[in-house]
Amino acid sequence: MLNQLFFTPGPSQLYPSVPQHLQNAIREHIGSISHRGKKFQMIFQEMKESLTDILKIPPHYEIFVTSSATEIWERIIQNLITTSSHHFVNGSFSKKFYDFTTAYLLKSTSQVSDFSQEFIDFKIPNSAELISITQNETSVGYTFNPAEIKNIRENNPDKLIALDLVSSAPAIPVDLSLVDTAYFSVQKCFGLPAGMGVWIVGPKCFEVSKVKKSKNEIVGSYHSLSELKKNGDKNQTPETPNILGLYLLKNVLKDMQLKGIQSIQNETKYKSALIFQIFDQITELKTIVKQPLNQSKTVCVSDVVGGNKGLIRYLKSKHLIIGSGYGDFKNQHIRIANFPAHSKESIEMLVDEIGKYFNG
Amino acid sequence: MLNQLFFTPGPSQLYPSVPQHLQNAIREHIGSISHRGKKFQMIFQEMKESLTDILKIPPHYEIFVTSSATEIWERIIQNLITTSSHHFVNGSFSKKFYDFTTAYLLKSTSQVSDFSQEFIDFKIPNSAELISITQNETSVGYTFNPAEIKNIRENNPDKLIALDLVSSAPAIPVDLSLVDTAYFSVQKCFGLPAGMGVWIVGPKCFEVSKVKKSKNEIVGSYHSLSELKKNGDKNQTPETPNILGLYLLKNVLKDMQLKGIQSIQNETKYKSALIFQIFDQITELKTIVKQPLNQSKTVCVSDVVGGNKGLIRYLKSKHLIIGSGYGDFKNQHIRIANFPAHSKESIEMLVDEIGKYFNG
Repeated sequence: MLNQLFFTPGPSQLYPSVPQHLQNAIREHIGSISHRGKKFQMIFQEMKESLTDILKIPPHYEIFVTSSATEIWERIIQNLITTSSHHFVNGSFSKKFYDFTTAYLLKSTSQVSDFSQEFIDFKIPNSAELISITQNETSVGYTFNPAEIKNIRENNPDKLIALDLVSSAPAIPVDLSLVDTAYFSVQKCFGLPAGMGVWIVGPKCFEVSKVKKSKNEIVGSYHSLSELKKNGDKNQTPETPNILGLYLLKNVLKDMQLKGIQSIQNETKYKSALIFQIFDQITELKTIVKQPLNQSKTVCVSDVVGGNKGLIRYLKSKHLIIGSGYGDFKNQHIRIANFPAHSKESIEMLVDEIGKYFNG
Repeated sequence: MLNQLFFTPGPSQLYPSVPQHLQNAIREHIGSISHRGKKFQMIFQEMKESLTDILKIPPHYEIFVTSSATEIWERIIQNLITTSSHHFVNGSFSKKFYDFTTAYLLKSTSQVSDFSQEFIDFKIPNSAELISITQNETSVGYTFNPAEIKNIRENNPDKLIALDLVSSAPAIPVDLSLVDTAYFSVQKCFGLPAGMGVWIVGPKCFEVSKVKKSKNEIVGSYHSLSELKKNGDKNQTPETPNILGLYLLKNVLKDMQLKGIQSIQNETKYKSALIFQIFDQITELKTIVKQPLNQSKTVCVSDVVGGNKGLIRYLKSKHLIIGSGYGDFKNQHIRIANFPAHSKESIEMLVDEIGKYFNG
């Protein structure tokens, strides 16, 4: 098997320590321990402590594990929305969450923006109980203007705000005190095998879910907020969870603490500058998000004049795997993940090879 | 770290080849590959082919992966029940599924049986759309009489039957043509790390779910049967799944095919005979399920006169980890898993040590 490097937008390159943690997991019988035992409780608790430190999670916010960020969309709908929500949609993933509200027969609204421009306005219908914002839209590499998150919070003090951190946390700073709930999956910036979502839930959410339930509305079963909290208070989960995944997350979070989150975020900026520089230098490449404010630093997306096939194939021959475009843009865009698992050296090597491909 | 052997009822001892498969997974970049790529599709397809062979899954039944068997309870409720179901409850897990129907505001019914006796009758209310049967109740080691599954099928040709295979498949034979849907989680008899449920779905289920949806009822979102099938037809999943878990399952299934399922099932019988023999020989041990027909061969449960603490501690000092009782029986019962990962030699060693503890 070739020693490939994955710059795909997730699943992506594993954090460098993951193979060692997997070895240790076998030695420590992590695949066999009970999810009702002390060892599991320690792992869960340490994971929560490290994540709270890294993301500066405000006091009284809870942390739960699910199977994916996709699952969390559904749990947000079940627990936190009775009639309608409002969704800022600027790509396929934010749209998918909105589509889930239709499947749940809600009367939600959306404001759709093309990636070529900022949202036109940030008005929210009065009827919306929850506002959905995607910090980093993985499909097109669009970052939501952080100043607008602050404005939305100030203009909507009584509504819940849900923030999708899927391909941004912890590489991009975020002020979680501005939102009521946030979530991510571990196969993006945390450099882990897929199969786990992490759900951060503020105090107001528990109230809203309780009120919804008291009105004889369905809030789900094992992953209702009350079940998650009842078990979470004991550092347990309602179901038998992905214990190995949780163990890996706990350990990678500790590695990130050792490296320092500031250092990870600084490196992210430096590496993204290298990527956008090559997009600028090469005539055939065109950054698809024009407004610098909205350009994602973790998923850098460019149009390739004449199609992406040749470039992707060339890089693959150099054992460098990048992402193709999402959905309709499959053959047109390239997506380059710039996650903490990607070293400065590996990004330098990548942009070097991109330059060689076009300049010969 | 000690070289312990886990006879706990799941998570339990890993199948012996799992450490090697994990090593290979790292070498093959399984943690980094895309769930929309060919390599993933191959893994999913091969898993389904091997499982179909091992469990003799009838033609036109589909196989989906979820995050747990617990999730599958919820998906069955969302997709297959509109008003009510009937549940044969003989322990905590079958009861939990029934409790989920209450959370979903259904008017389901249950027949509860103590583990000390067979169910009194097998009548099903006319109103029940689905009948829930647990082949092997993990909490108390109770096996549902297989002849009665056949009778229930014959007496209820128009109702759906859902069979919980959690701690029985593939160690105990099952005739899946008698049921419409069945499911298990991988951390029991498949000897894998927790974090995946497998859902087997017959043709009638897709019809029922479609009808429910057409009546403007909620059938869920990404894990509705139509979404699972749409993606499954391409050997894909709606969300980014536990790819590493799926890879391990695929490989352990192939290992089991090599060993031969008949051989695995024969060994299960032989090893369970050893366990029940020691329960019979030791005055302080009393098999809690008296009727041989209902005694589980995969989760063998005994009462310990005077409490289980001393025995569990003694065995732990010999690096043999067994399960305590479930729920109210925590300090009273012992539960010994007899899964394919447990070699004949390891079970012989275990019963030997149990004998030594009591006989000195």
